[in-house]
Amino acid sequence: MQSDEQQIHQLVATWIAATKAGDIDTVLSLMAKDVVFLMPGRPPMIGKSAFAAAAATQPGQERPQFDGTSDIQEIEVVGEWAFMWAKLSVVMTPPGDAPPIARAGYTLSILNKQNGKWLLARDANMLSPVSNGGA
Amino acid sequence: MQSDEQQIHQLVATWIAATKAGDIDTVLSLMAKDVVFLMPGRPPMIGKSAFAAAAATQPGQERPQFDGTSDIQEIEVVGEWAFMWAKLSVVMTPPGDAPPIARAGYTLSILNKQNGKWLLARDANMLSPVSNGGA
Repeated sequence: MQSDEQQIHQLVATWIAATKAGDIDTVLSLMAKDVVFLMPGRPPMIGKSAFAAAAATQPGQERPQFDGTSDIQEIEVVGEWAFMWAKLSVVMTPPGDAPPIARAGYTLSILNKQNGKWLLARDANMLSPVSNGGA
Repeated sequence: MQSDEQQIHQLVATWIAATKAGDIDTVLSLMAKDVVFLMPGRPPMIGKSAFAAAAATQPGQERPQFDGTSDIQEIEVVGEWAFMWAKLSVVMTPPGDAPPIARAGYTLSILNKQNGKWLLARDANMLSPVSNGGA
């Protein structure tokens, strides 16, 4: 029997593994229906269906490759709700010859336990481009 | 007797009014001792004393002028904890002849009720520069 903290660690690990594998259905299964994603310079992305639309590729279109690590700094569980913040690093490699794009920064997330399963409910993403010195 | 939601609205209004007035002591009274501020492109700012140090001016140094509005989109109270997200617009006017700097975007905040008083505990700030068309 996993603790709530262990289940939230597992959610993050599954999210990253599924994103790497291009398994959007699994990523969608980890978020609440009314999830809200907040990012700098963009309007809020509200709802699982908005995430699905943003992640969709056109037929024949190649998906970018993702790699990433999330280093959880704090998890606080309050009943069926929890918050956590983490240091996230992501490298996205576009299809074709374009160079990889590295982004890093912090996330602050609200999680909600629904039917015994933790889901991402609100997410603040403060990633910014990483300059790699040589570039 | 104010509801928790009303008290949190009041906290935000007091924060903005005190920031405009340059009343840093009042702003500091609205945050938990172990507060964490997360922003893009910067390391986390951890603790009330780090905020105080960042807000301090040198003797004789003029303080920048702030104006701002926070439009709260959602507050969820869970016992002694709460989260909220808001649309924030800030204009900072540096001392001297430098032009004002406008920034806007979203915040996601965790609040904690300590000794009957709501305090800011964790804050994700996703403000980015606003281009004003004419500039």
